[in-house]
Amino acid sequence: MNKLSRILITVAIPLAILLIPVPAGLSVTAWRLFALYIAAILGIMFRPYPDPVILLAVIAVSSLWLNNIGVALAGYASTTTWLVFTAFMVGQAFSDTGLGKRIAYILIGKMGRTTLGLSYVAALTDLVLSPATPSTTARTGGLVYPIFRSIASTLGSEPGPTAKRLGAFLSVLLYQISMATGALFITALATHPMVVSFAKDLLKIDITWMLWAKAMAVPGFIVLAVTPYLVYKMFPPEIKQIDNQEIANRGMAEIGPMSVKEKILAGLFVLAIIGWSTGSITKINSTAVAVGFVAACLVTGVVSWESLLKCKGAWSTLIWYGGIISLADGLAKAKFFVWFAGALGKSISFDGYGTLTVLLGLLALSLVVRYFFASQAAYVSSLIPVFFTIGLVAKVPVFPLALLLGASSVFGSQLTHYGNAVGPVLFGPGYVDQVTWWKIGTVMVVVNCIVYLGVGLPYWKLLGLW
Amino acid sequence: MNKLSRILITVAIPLAILLIPVPAGLSVTAWRLFALYIAAILGIMFRPYPDPVILLAVIAVSSLWLNNIGVALAGYASTTTWLVFTAFMVGQAFSDTGLGKRIAYILIGKMGRTTLGLSYVAALTDLVLSPATPSTTARTGGLVYPIFRSIASTLGSEPGPTAKRLGAFLSVLLYQISMATGALFITALATHPMVVSFAKDLLKIDITWMLWAKAMAVPGFIVLAVTPYLVYKMFPPEIKQIDNQEIANRGMAEIGPMSVKEKILAGLFVLAIIGWSTGSITKINSTAVAVGFVAACLVTGVVSWESLLKCKGAWSTLIWYGGIISLADGLAKAKFFVWFAGALGKSISFDGYGTLTVLLGLLALSLVVRYFFASQAAYVSSLIPVFFTIGLVAKVPVFPLALLLGASSVFGSQLTHYGNAVGPVLFGPGYVDQVTWWKIGTVMVVVNCIVYLGVGLPYWKLLGLW
Repeated sequence: MNKLSRILITVAIPLAILLIPVPAGLSVTAWRLFALYIAAILGIMFRPYPDPVILLAVIAVSSLWLNNIGVALAGYASTTTWLVFTAFMVGQAFSDTGLGKRIAYILIGKMGRTTLGLSYVAALTDLVLSPATPSTTARTGGLVYPIFRSIASTLGSEPGPTAKRLGAFLSVLLYQISMATGALFITALATHPMVVSFAKDLLKIDITWMLWAKAMAVPGFIVLAVTPYLVYKMFPPEIKQIDNQEIANRGMAEIGPMSVKEKILAGLFVLAIIGWSTGSITKINSTAVAVGFVAACLVTGVVSWESLLKCKGAWSTLIWYGGIISLADGLAKAKFFVWFAGALGKSISFDGYGTLTVLLGLLALSLVVRYFFASQAAYVSSLIPVFFTIGLVAKVPVFPLALLLGASSVFGSQLTHYGNAVGPVLFGPGYVDQVTWWKIGTVMVVVNCIVYLGVGLPYWKLLGLW
Repeated sequence: MNKLSRILITVAIPLAILLIPVPAGLSVTAWRLFALYIAAILGIMFRPYPDPVILLAVIAVSSLWLNNIGVALAGYASTTTWLVFTAFMVGQAFSDTGLGKRIAYILIGKMGRTTLGLSYVAALTDLVLSPATPSTTARTGGLVYPIFRSIASTLGSEPGPTAKRLGAFLSVLLYQISMATGALFITALATHPMVVSFAKDLLKIDITWMLWAKAMAVPGFIVLAVTPYLVYKMFPPEIKQIDNQEIANRGMAEIGPMSVKEKILAGLFVLAIIGWSTGSITKINSTAVAVGFVAACLVTGVVSWESLLKCKGAWSTLIWYGGIISLADGLAKAKFFVWFAGALGKSISFDGYGTLTVLLGLLALSLVVRYFFASQAAYVSSLIPVFFTIGLVAKVPVFPLALLLGASSVFGSQLTHYGNAVGPVLFGPGYVDQVTWWKIGTVMVVVNCIVYLGVGLPYWKLLGLW
């Protein structure tokens, strides 16, 4: 689709919404804000411009037309936005100091003798980094992938005839791993804070960092633990054994002895995780911990301001994420979702269906639609509030609703190679064909469903969450 | 002073403040926030780290210690912050498209035959750009200076023995001009929105874009009109005549024919100025106009998102400016300034002094202190609230108070070569010695005082502002 038609879609649908008479029970402002919200989501889906440009444009239209600049900018002071923004910068520190690489090479030296072992090294490295790097492109695409890609290259596996020796396996595996670790922590995926924020606004529940981590720990770790093995079985690399000592030694030689900066970063990282995991006791806000983490990295010289200025992903995210949060909060404050729930309750009856049936239906729906979303953020910002509202109307217990849809917002990305932003990074080089990628992803989504329903739901019951 | 002592000062003084028992009538939170505010200002003054790092650190301490992340981040949703941030980006558009250069070369061709004419070209170019480029480093340092510096070079005037031929004159002149245009519009200087915000919080007056422009128009334009002439008389360049046609033609040839982007930018620029100047009638917020301007530049392709991501000044400003605004707003909300005014009223009596005497005293004070401030932002954020409060206690009419101190916050920079951030850019290359620079600046400050007091005050009376 060319740029012009993408612009047209982004503009025409919201205009059509505006032509519909304002539904009874809804303010004119709420309806207009809804049209602008749809414009933002269509813009993120069809991308006639980069995401931040879309959001700046929608904010501009909103504040010029609705005279609501206060509402339009509110998201930039939101703790949700800042949690994501500052954690992005932490990723830069891991990359700048070489600590991310070091963790990987240590693990390769210890347990990477076979390619199956190597696949667990990839999972562990990604896991270690995940609590503080919500950007999958930064974590898996920027830190983990380059290391494993270079191992594949070293062993003579390049896109093309030699792909199946190792590179193809590692590419598809890393995507599955990145989504598996992404489910574990609020700070492991950029869209999770948004899910939590919707849960707070719509379901009236407070999901702390620790609560999320505890709830995901059992099903999430099971998925992460079986992922390398299953991918290995489904799509085995031709190379089975590697000279991991040589690779580890060469890698370690390249990054040199552990620097003071790395040690400080490791210390701060541990402190941040303690801060996040004790937040429900200390009442220290998780965003405050993240800001403190970044500030400490800067003050101790672990990372320089110049380097953070070059971290374009962080700045772009600040702008589009803040904008989306402004609009979503504005809609919530304008009582749009309350009206939506009311309208839904009047027109659809869930009587006769058990709440579990509705929950399963929502889960299925949340997966099917993912084929149409090339952006995790577009999916979360547009459909999570809808699914939450439906669940609320059908009286589905709120915690399982939020957690299950939170998890499926990550693993749903595995259905395609474009579901999450790191997909194109790993798929792009061309080690793997699309059919193989989608097949493995589909199997893994089924595995996720089984684990989250079969283990997750009972475990959450055990935790007293429903 | 080395980095360690600068860190020590920044930390020790706030700690000392915290050791003082909380004054009666003030909450503990307000007192702690005040200590953090002082830390931020000391940090900006002594710069142990870049400004954004200072503010991130203070925000981190505030939100971890005082558990006030909402307060600490509020400034990032402030229209004040966003006005400055987005206008910074507009400066990038002027530079990217070449429109800034084109304006200069057209004027050089038309009226730059003598070096006196050339100096008026510099003033006009800076004036044209000033309504939408609050960054003096971007406007004068980034756009205007390179053109005039290259003219000096072409005519064989370099730092050293040939400096006085032309380059020395142009360097010192551009600084004086930049401050003169900086007074004219709220959007012509990064710190003006902060002054306006303090005026709103403390003096309870609403200074719109148009009101400021109208109030500054008469005294400000007089200053701008006499500046080139006076500097020319005080510090004449040896070269009197130049081949301006050749310079203009060469410059125009280099940038080529006017592009569509430049035309769009020119159109958007006119629209933005209309938007700002009619804001008091249309009730459209000036920040909404600025966001609209940037969004329109992006959507029409006048400037790319990639290019804005590289505009480091804008991002750094967003972070430190938003942080300062958070803290200042937080202090105001914690009733710190109300308490301060009360305490001041109890301990100092202004009886027997006319309000005009107090105003003159404040003006004098606002200038004397500038020798100690290497940052305009540090001066404005620390002393403007103090001066406003003193003026309020002494019952000085609020509009003259705000406008005169607003103007002196700019022209006070002319006393030194470090008063405003563009100073080092122009002074740095070494065309002019410090004594000459300070002498000319001092004369121009006297001229400013005469004009603002002799013409400004009566004119503001005429406008009904007191």
